[in-house]
Amino acid sequence: MSRSGHLITDDDPVRCALTGLVRTTDKLGLLLHERVVYRRDWNAEEGKVAIVSGGGSGHEPFAAGLVGQGGLTAAVAGSVFASPPAGAVLAALRKVAGPGGVMLVVFNYTGDRINFGLAAERARAEGIRVSIHFVADDCALESEDKAVGRRGLLGGIAAIKTLGAAAEAGKDLEYMGKLFEEVTEESRLGTIGFAATGCSLPSGESGINLNPGEVELGLGVHGEPGIRKYKITSTRALVQELLKPVQRRIKLSPSDDLLLLINNLGGLTEIEQLNLITAIVEEIEAQNAKVSLVGSGHIMTSLDMAGANFSLLKMNTEIREFITAPCSFPAWPALTTPGGEIDTQETKETFDCPKTVNWGVSGVRAIVQKVCASLIASKDLLNELDAAAGDGDCGSTVALGAEAVLKAIDGLDCDPSAFFYRIASALENDMGGSSGSLLSLLFTAFATTIKISEEQFTAPVVIAALSSGCTQIMQIGRAAEQDRTMLDALCPALRELQSSADLNKAAKAARAGAEATKDMVARAGRASYCKERDSAKVPDAGSVMIAIAFEALA
Amino acid sequence: MSRSGHLITDDDPVRCALTGLVRTTDKLGLLLHERVVYRRDWNAEEGKVAIVSGGGSGHEPFAAGLVGQGGLTAAVAGSVFASPPAGAVLAALRKVAGPGGVMLVVFNYTGDRINFGLAAERARAEGIRVSIHFVADDCALESEDKAVGRRGLLGGIAAIKTLGAAAEAGKDLEYMGKLFEEVTEESRLGTIGFAATGCSLPSGESGINLNPGEVELGLGVHGEPGIRKYKITSTRALVQELLKPVQRRIKLSPSDDLLLLINNLGGLTEIEQLNLITAIVEEIEAQNAKVSLVGSGHIMTSLDMAGANFSLLKMNTEIREFITAPCSFPAWPALTTPGGEIDTQETKETFDCPKTVNWGVSGVRAIVQKVCASLIASKDLLNELDAAAGDGDCGSTVALGAEAVLKAIDGLDCDPSAFFYRIASALENDMGGSSGSLLSLLFTAFATTIKISEEQFTAPVVIAALSSGCTQIMQIGRAAEQDRTMLDALCPALRELQSSADLNKAAKAARAGAEATKDMVARAGRASYCKERDSAKVPDAGSVMIAIAFEALA
Repeated sequence: MSRSGHLITDDDPVRCALTGLVRTTDKLGLLLHERVVYRRDWNAEEGKVAIVSGGGSGHEPFAAGLVGQGGLTAAVAGSVFASPPAGAVLAALRKVAGPGGVMLVVFNYTGDRINFGLAAERARAEGIRVSIHFVADDCALESEDKAVGRRGLLGGIAAIKTLGAAAEAGKDLEYMGKLFEEVTEESRLGTIGFAATGCSLPSGESGINLNPGEVELGLGVHGEPGIRKYKITSTRALVQELLKPVQRRIKLSPSDDLLLLINNLGGLTEIEQLNLITAIVEEIEAQNAKVSLVGSGHIMTSLDMAGANFSLLKMNTEIREFITAPCSFPAWPALTTPGGEIDTQETKETFDCPKTVNWGVSGVRAIVQKVCASLIASKDLLNELDAAAGDGDCGSTVALGAEAVLKAIDGLDCDPSAFFYRIASALENDMGGSSGSLLSLLFTAFATTIKISEEQFTAPVVIAALSSGCTQIMQIGRAAEQDRTMLDALCPALRELQSSADLNKAAKAARAGAEATKDMVARAGRASYCKERDSAKVPDAGSVMIAIAFEALA
Repeated sequence: MSRSGHLITDDDPVRCALTGLVRTTDKLGLLLHERVVYRRDWNAEEGKVAIVSGGGSGHEPFAAGLVGQGGLTAAVAGSVFASPPAGAVLAALRKVAGPGGVMLVVFNYTGDRINFGLAAERARAEGIRVSIHFVADDCALESEDKAVGRRGLLGGIAAIKTLGAAAEAGKDLEYMGKLFEEVTEESRLGTIGFAATGCSLPSGESGINLNPGEVELGLGVHGEPGIRKYKITSTRALVQELLKPVQRRIKLSPSDDLLLLINNLGGLTEIEQLNLITAIVEEIEAQNAKVSLVGSGHIMTSLDMAGANFSLLKMNTEIREFITAPCSFPAWPALTTPGGEIDTQETKETFDCPKTVNWGVSGVRAIVQKVCASLIASKDLLNELDAAAGDGDCGSTVALGAEAVLKAIDGLDCDPSAFFYRIASALENDMGGSSGSLLSLLFTAFATTIKISEEQFTAPVVIAALSSGCTQIMQIGRAAEQDRTMLDALCPALRELQSSADLNKAAKAARAGAEATKDMVARAGRASYCKERDSAKVPDAGSVMIAIAFEALA
């Protein structure tokens, strides 16, 4: 499982990645040298406020994935986990600046503060109107070290979405400055995360060393140490732990209009992420509040770190309007409104077993019972045959199926199609394995033919029904005669029935077909995966099972 | 980096994941027991064709993430990497069936063929109109083993998108059956992939053992062995290798309308994925064809497997219309049209150095040269001081900056603001480190103040300019006096200048401030990360640098 660095080892992976992004969409442009991605459809002269952000790479789709209508006007990328140089930020500012001015949104890390700050100062010296803002939504750090301060994390994406919509709506720089203060207010927006691994850097590995089941709480997106290590006992308990520092900033109340943004840091499975969402939503509900909008995805990753972070944002009417406004940048997840319906009831399989036909059910039942008994008696023989070529459980599986059929038809008095549906259902639910499903398929098709033949249980109908079942096995199981399967006995027996309608002859044909499988190479079913094993010239267990069944019928 | 199984270890992770999905969107419903997700807004009586698919879990967002308008009507999930039971598929068919009938799209794996096939047969027996179709888009297997056959992979998602749009448009079951044949034609649709790791199963690890830089080509989504191992030399070479089996099925031509769908199998970084996209698009162009639509994302993962697969689909007018029709399910990526612009020119920093003011540039240059010489001479001293508390390179960095400034101002004859912008630029580009950026910030703000003071180089303007630079360092660098930084010398010197305008006194104040840092604890800058190290009662190197500079000025 462990990787040593990136798979893709070409030089300059960041410029190549940005090239990929821009080559595949005609809405974007790239200053390759400065690693600046910008909106091609941006017309600064229209007077709208431009928004620029960025930071180290390794957090894709952030920041270039936020460029588009209703999002950033331009994004600046540094090398992996390194702040972009001030000159690159300045190039972005020059590219998009116009009479509306530029809003520079900086995620609070020391290097970014300095380089973006310097670029803003240089841009101002050139007469560009720049307003610089720092996102610091991290709830993990309650550091007294004011120089380091809270980091800018996922919550900044919600802020950018809000600002982008406001800019699109024609709001001016002053309004947007106030909006920024409002949306990033510490009692309104907060982010927390966890991870179980470091990440694969292009150059090698960046490790956090943890024991299995242990995660680091509140770490940063570059694998900086978190608040502490934590042993997960359940997802819900993890979520309770994560929410504590968030709730020191954000007080939840039933009247909140709460956005939950959940971000995969790169290497978490989607199942884990969905489990996390369930636990967050349920824990917040348990605290008598509720989540009213959810967005989940890969928004601001940390290469392939196995972890996640999430942000809570208390919206007001204005913020909700901007958060839900249409936008065209790929990093923003589709937002959903909670409230799907969950039916926890188990569907009880009900058998509609009408009895309208007098067809001799007790005679047929006696025959089926005889076949089942014969198959159960052959359990060891079939297991031995199967062990020579497959995994040695054919007899046991068949015996399980036969027992289930015996139980299902005990006292069953109904029309013939219902009788055989009941058998099919028993085979599906209790026999197991592919052979259980295939035999169930055979009996389902068999029963259906009888049903559409208006419940006539005559020899021609029964033979047509068997033929239909046989066809289904071939089509669905993708097998044919000569593949060393049960079909090598079933098909000859069926042909004999179709020509002579004689069960004795059919049984003989089945047995001869089964014997002939001795020389065949398995091409379907489990045995086909065990080709290297010498089949030791024994017949196929499935075909022998069919021969035994026909011999019991005869 | 290695994980042992899932972080989130609660029982029944698949049902919990589906619960998370459905709880967070009011458009979906869930039959919890059968693990069936369905459209709540579906009205079977309207007579549209319903579409059902599914398979083992671990491939999220597939299949539940395809449920929605223009996508699946219902999806059935099995356990991780295990086919759902036929009874669950039947429950999905019953839930959505109506007069329009149901299209059952099955990804070709043995277990799924059998269980979905059986469910279809049972549904037909109940009078439900079901048409069953198998996706087999895998280009890796050219197996002669017809029973195993090609697997259903990512291409099936493109097929479902096409069918979903057709159903939404009111097409009937017969039309859609033909459309399925058309879109999945082997000369039209194909998929290939690679991976470098197995994946973290809820129960532990599923490994592929590979050497660093090696990947398995053409493997299946459960980690089945691929065609062969392959050592990556470049992304482009990898792509050429991957395209070979695809091109045995799909012949590329310049007139093709080609959709490229790229899927992260879970643990690939976004940078790697974007590099892959670049290489695919460029390789196809090198073959005189072109990609006309691209969709990239996590579409059908394999837990956290570090790998990707991609599909090519040759569209015709009809298929393009359905592929690009609006839809509302989250697993379908936003499609983009290639054609962004890439500017490969490096921005040359051009200095506009107007000379309109007679301000004594040669005198100021001489003073700056003196300061630089003094700082260069103090290299070892500053390195030693820094080694006691930081990383010991302060003197070297300062010397680099001083050399750069000397070079920049050599013969420079221009207005004062241009003169100091030039210094700021040299510090930014050639000094390096946070201190280079901070000093650059200081001189940028300094120059800006002089510029807005209409290039007056009088004592009051110079003092105001220094004050502006000092403020910028404090704001952007998040530091203040007493934090054991250069500010502890700079601020007292500035205060002295503001009150007496006497450079001698300022130099003394700077030196006293620097000496006082001996007893301070670092709270900003690099030294703050080295708290555990005893600062050995030496003054801060940055503050001493400022004292030396002022002493040279005096």
